[in-house]
Amino acid sequence: MSEKVFINEVGLRDGLQNQPNPVTTESKLAMAEALIAAGVQHIEAVSFVHPKAVPQMADAVDVLAGLPKDKNLNIAALVPNMKGYERAKEQGVKSVAVVLSSTDTFNMRNLNMTLQQTKETCQQVIQQAKADGIFVRGYVSGAFSCPYDGKTPVDIVHKLTADMIEFGADEISIADTVGAGNPTQVNDILAPLVQQYGGSLFNLHLHDTRGQALAMAWAGVTQGVRKFDSSIGGLGGCPFAPGASGNVATEDLVYMLEEAGFDSGIDIEKLRHAVAVAEQATGQELGGRVLQWMKSQDIRKQKNQAPCV
Amino acid sequence: MSEKVFINEVGLRDGLQNQPNPVTTESKLAMAEALIAAGVQHIEAVSFVHPKAVPQMADAVDVLAGLPKDKNLNIAALVPNMKGYERAKEQGVKSVAVVLSSTDTFNMRNLNMTLQQTKETCQQVIQQAKADGIFVRGYVSGAFSCPYDGKTPVDIVHKLTADMIEFGADEISIADTVGAGNPTQVNDILAPLVQQYGGSLFNLHLHDTRGQALAMAWAGVTQGVRKFDSSIGGLGGCPFAPGASGNVATEDLVYMLEEAGFDSGIDIEKLRHAVAVAEQATGQELGGRVLQWMKSQDIRKQKNQAPCV
Repeated sequence: MSEKVFINEVGLRDGLQNQPNPVTTESKLAMAEALIAAGVQHIEAVSFVHPKAVPQMADAVDVLAGLPKDKNLNIAALVPNMKGYERAKEQGVKSVAVVLSSTDTFNMRNLNMTLQQTKETCQQVIQQAKADGIFVRGYVSGAFSCPYDGKTPVDIVHKLTADMIEFGADEISIADTVGAGNPTQVNDILAPLVQQYGGSLFNLHLHDTRGQALAMAWAGVTQGVRKFDSSIGGLGGCPFAPGASGNVATEDLVYMLEEAGFDSGIDIEKLRHAVAVAEQATGQELGGRVLQWMKSQDIRKQKNQAPCV
Repeated sequence: MSEKVFINEVGLRDGLQNQPNPVTTESKLAMAEALIAAGVQHIEAVSFVHPKAVPQMADAVDVLAGLPKDKNLNIAALVPNMKGYERAKEQGVKSVAVVLSSTDTFNMRNLNMTLQQTKETCQQVIQQAKADGIFVRGYVSGAFSCPYDGKTPVDIVHKLTADMIEFGADEISIADTVGAGNPTQVNDILAPLVQQYGGSLFNLHLHDTRGQALAMAWAGVTQGVRKFDSSIGGLGGCPFAPGASGNVATEDLVYMLEEAGFDSGIDIEKLRHAVAVAEQATGQELGGRVLQWMKSQDIRKQKNQAPCV
């Protein structure tokens, strides 16, 4: 029996939130359907932020209402504050995520709060969610690098993680929000945390901006991490800069982990269909490295060429 | 002081050998010059195969003659047999590489010899080279997967490696010739070898066909490997299949290892120039993931946009 790994699809939330073109509720539900058909069981589907800040998330209520109610499915909503939490709770979500960024600047730019204010908000939300019997994930955002203040000291990440755990978070997502990290940082951050708290508490949220995401994920595997975020087709890139990739592509992560002997429960061929649905939804060409390879093999087959070696 | 890693540039040999358009000797030397200016000290520059089999290597003698004679520079020639070895030796090379593929089929297709015949040839060349005071690297090709026979059993890789070491090889390159491997295979192959022989004997030769090369390189790092092959700009892809990448790009590997705290002695900005020279030489658009990211940042700067996060 292969060891299990857990893939949390964040394409519908992190992947879509910066898209320049509006994506309809119907298209979002079609993406979710294709992902679920491929075996995806964990989806961070929406964010309850103010629609003026993130217009793509304005239909959060409708998306949640339209998703299947299968009990094997774990649907989560990101909530930036108590107001967002209350709205998510009204929709009956069983899982929420809060975000604590690593620096004052990053918290101010993201949520218009200082680090201390965000921390207090996280504490409030986490404690209320636990009282309500709702699972809470705490993101430590900018855990590798802050886009404004540079590389994040590992001590800060450890301190913020300890705070979130003390508040009662059920899971901590160590997030390379800008895709600027490296595998040594994964080791330096995760090794002491896994030793102190065990591996099952942690998730790695990686962006593939500089092509380092799979190497960092593998560093995470060696440290005992078994939970990862990803976006179908690598959704989430900065739409104005070619080559600035978004979240690590779900198909790349699933391919690596399955090939390396882990059981993700996800079918890579069916993920390919999910990429096509996401392309339809966004009007963008998408696809991680493995998808590019699959496409190249198709072209060779059409031309009756031997597989390219 | 950072721990050293050793990057062996194979773009001039493995990268160019399948190029559909002829690359002039002058262009090859310009590529080498740009690489050396970036700090590259190890270059597998040519192959002494029959020009009919690999026309791109027909100017091997001229390329070797034109390369700088700096004593810090390690220039190697691939030799498929004794005849190739003698030709390389005539040119005064200090380092040669022999190739042993993991299966009969692969040896037949590559060199028109059975596995046993290739092994005997390797033994002959290695023993002669050692007698002549020439450094010998032995490739174990198709160490992860054979394009004809599928996944390579790890025992075969260990046996072929032991044979090459017994013959007297100074270094063994464990080669994922078709880019079909995964990080668990790296662990399974390298862990026992490093334990028995020490890490300094081994090199990893990775292709990025399915986007797994950096994760596999990192698995190698965790097993104690400090020597890696790569091609500038990711040269070496199958030119007829878009998306079928070649060797792992030198800039991707150097970026990861430097960011992770190792000292490659190579300047990433100067590598960027080497990519441009290789593009000029081959008439192809080249560049690994890190180069794509660098380009995207340039575009943002030109547009006076903040760095894309």
